[in-house]
Amino acid sequence: MSKYSLFGKFIVQEGKRDLLADILLEAAESMKDLDECEVYLVSMSENEPDAVYVYETWDNEEAHQASLSLEATQTLISRAKPIIAGMERISTLKTVGGKGV
Amino acid sequence: MSKYSLFGKFIVQEGKRDLLADILLEAAESMKDLDECEVYLVSMSENEPDAVYVYETWDNEEAHQASLSLEATQTLISRAKPIIAGMERISTLKTVGGKGV
Repeated sequence: MSKYSLFGKFIVQEGKRDLLADILLEAAESMKDLDECEVYLVSMSENEPDAVYVYETWDNEEAHQASLSLEATQTLISRAKPIIAGMERISTLKTVGGKGV
Repeated sequence: MSKYSLFGKFIVQEGKRDLLADILLEAAESMKDLDECEVYLVSMSENEPDAVYVYETWDNEEAHQASLSLEATQTLISRAKPIIAGMERISTLKTVGGKGV
């Protein structure tokens, strides 16, 4: 049974990378009890001072969609929005297995 | 303490996607006892019949490098090489945290 993975990039206002990373780490923390979310990794790139990457794996697309309307998620989205300058969906994937799921 | 993540894509010979995915899943299995490898996810994309994606997170770059010379890895690489038509490193990242690590 494959899973649903997303890999994307947030572009932040100058100097706000760490702040957005902290908010996204809070989002990851809020998903620790959400079994449908198996992986939610927050990363940065050495040569992109204004980018934060998220790789997430969900049981399925519906579970991911449903998470967007959770109160905790909505709160975090409202805190993050003012410092986000852009977003890019890099890959939408069907994860067939591996270590970590 | 941040971790070292890689996101890449293998292009396979036509019709060999599932075979490569199986070999990469064996690689992931062989890493189940390798603590330095925290995540190794094998994925496909709906609209790319000849691509297999791997997202992997390691304690650090050295741990990843060392894994390439393990006998199990070398064996899998030699099995995969004949069906790989190309490789693309999409992102090299510093993972600062999240669910799954």
